[in-house]
Amino acid sequence: ALAAPPRITGLPDISWRLQSSFPATLDTIYGAAEAMARSAAILTGGRFRIEIAPPDRYVPAGQALDAVSAGSVQALQTCSYYHVDRDPAFAFGSALPFGLNARMQDAWIVEGGGGPLLDGLYAQYGLTSLVAGNTGAQMGGWFRKEIRSLPEMAGLKMRIAGLGGMVLARLGVEPQELAIESAYAALDDGWLDAAEWSGPYEDEQLGFYKVAPYYYYPGWWDGGPSIHLLINRAAFEALPETYKEALRASAAQARHEMQARYDVRNNTAIRSLIDKGVQLRPFPTDILEAAYKASFELYAELAAAHPRFKAIYEPWKGFRDQIYQSFRVAEYSFESFGFTQQAKGH
Amino acid sequence: ALAAPPRITGLPDISWRLQSSFPATLDTIYGAAEAMARSAAILTGGRFRIEIAPPDRYVPAGQALDAVSAGSVQALQTCSYYHVDRDPAFAFGSALPFGLNARMQDAWIVEGGGGPLLDGLYAQYGLTSLVAGNTGAQMGGWFRKEIRSLPEMAGLKMRIAGLGGMVLARLGVEPQELAIESAYAALDDGWLDAAEWSGPYEDEQLGFYKVAPYYYYPGWWDGGPSIHLLINRAAFEALPETYKEALRASAAQARHEMQARYDVRNNTAIRSLIDKGVQLRPFPTDILEAAYKASFELYAELAAAHPRFKAIYEPWKGFRDQIYQSFRVAEYSFESFGFTQQAKGH
Repeated sequence: ALAAPPRITGLPDISWRLQSSFPATLDTIYGAAEAMARSAAILTGGRFRIEIAPPDRYVPAGQALDAVSAGSVQALQTCSYYHVDRDPAFAFGSALPFGLNARMQDAWIVEGGGGPLLDGLYAQYGLTSLVAGNTGAQMGGWFRKEIRSLPEMAGLKMRIAGLGGMVLARLGVEPQELAIESAYAALDDGWLDAAEWSGPYEDEQLGFYKVAPYYYYPGWWDGGPSIHLLINRAAFEALPETYKEALRASAAQARHEMQARYDVRNNTAIRSLIDKGVQLRPFPTDILEAAYKASFELYAELAAAHPRFKAIYEPWKGFRDQIYQSFRVAEYSFESFGFTQQAKGH
Repeated sequence: ALAAPPRITGLPDISWRLQSSFPATLDTIYGAAEAMARSAAILTGGRFRIEIAPPDRYVPAGQALDAVSAGSVQALQTCSYYHVDRDPAFAFGSALPFGLNARMQDAWIVEGGGGPLLDGLYAQYGLTSLVAGNTGAQMGGWFRKEIRSLPEMAGLKMRIAGLGGMVLARLGVEPQELAIESAYAALDDGWLDAAEWSGPYEDEQLGFYKVAPYYYYPGWWDGGPSIHLLINRAAFEALPETYKEALRASAAQARHEMQARYDVRNNTAIRSLIDKGVQLRPFPTDILEAAYKASFELYAELAAAHPRFKAIYEPWKGFRDQIYQSFRVAEYSFESFGFTQQAKGH
């Protein structure tokens, strides 16, 4: 039985502006923001309206985080780790190389202590957050030439940002932070050797397979990155409880549906890419091993230099090591056996 | 930009009764129903009230599905596959042996064609449905003696229901459908040899480790069972759109949070069980192989006998085979490498 919440009669008209870090052409992710706004409108009888806009519409994309901190834009659909230049601790909101898969990331945030840690971080910037999507484990990107071992990574120019790029730099790669829209032409010209974006569905749309046919996996820097709404904290706090709940609930719907759409669309797209002659390749083991070692060396250095990174890293690492072990029992053994049997044609 | 939905001013007071198939002591799952009702109340200013009750409160548990079909109870929190005796096609709403993991199940329902197929099935019974949780891959249950190979399964009395029990019967097991509350005493008396329920968190609460110390994995019949709300279809259709959306959105929150809670609580519980001396064992390969073969033989027979089962099985099987292949690429290789490195102490 429930205690009745207070009756609310005169709900206010509130309009928010939400800028996305993603263009509308990326329909899985941008569509989730539109669906969230639609749901919030239905839930409030049209009184809470969220206008969705693509990058640069309200403010230049590079200033969007500041605009949300200041409250001139109320919310940003983004990956937290796009903002690691501001503070490396923003990585924990999305993904770290060799970190959590999508389900572990949710578990950490909802119930594993990650939620309060991230909230404390975002509060430093006048923000609060809602998880509103995930892509699942991504692919490792497109390479013009086949890469057979670690030494062949040296000197490669690869379009990759964030901590993944920092790790690859330790392996001799020269990470390039160019806009994703520019990567195709750079690969075609030949001055760029490799580029990574996301998974098969979006990668196929971006056309990389035409100019860089070797498609590597896994994207070990993106095992299950959350998509967040970063929200101006004061604007959120000022909302009636009904509107706060409408945001929370519609974000959960976006989380649920975005992952499902990526999983189905990626499944279709990877078949289409193989039909087009794409060469699917696992990263050679020596590259994965070197990247793994370099990742945890990087985290130790970031923890030493950034107290806010350290304060989250230590519990995150403990959680990650423990949940890796527990997922190996039922979850991983279920998949291992089934995948093997299915691959044998049974 | 959004078209404004019509302004709604006079929302009606509506009270629903929701009976759960789960006792309140199973706090992860029962708590999700309570949270859903709380969210629906907040979203509607207290006008849409859902009273949650444990099994047998409104109607005897065995009559709950009929009561929801008839509309005397509006909703049932349940596993669809609890109702396979009525119609074997109800299995697809939850899980089939060697079927989909939790994320694949969501993908199938949201975007992979499963949603309309299930809706057509439930409509035959005057029902509609919302996914409102998942446990993830479960454990394979508690055995009084160690089981080293397939012949040792013959003649075992095991508490297991549904399709998992039907498959185990083909391996010589004698499945017993006794209530979970009775399983502990039956194991202790020695007339029952094994029992399965769910995962470490709930299994530890039920105390099986004291009387059956061999804990097998994976629960290959429960790779990622959805928890559903089965809802009287006419009652749902009669709701204002705001209330329908409140149900959809609060069910998505339940889906998100229940899985996260299980993952964290199972992680803690499996450590606690090992500390208590529980013997963790993978099912021997010959048992898994025989069960796999028997499962697909069973599905072929069910499809031949039940047109509604066949109509869902064929597309489900195609989806399952394809998504197994695509998950092996990025998702599974990310986990395989990371789990191996972490297990080496790296």
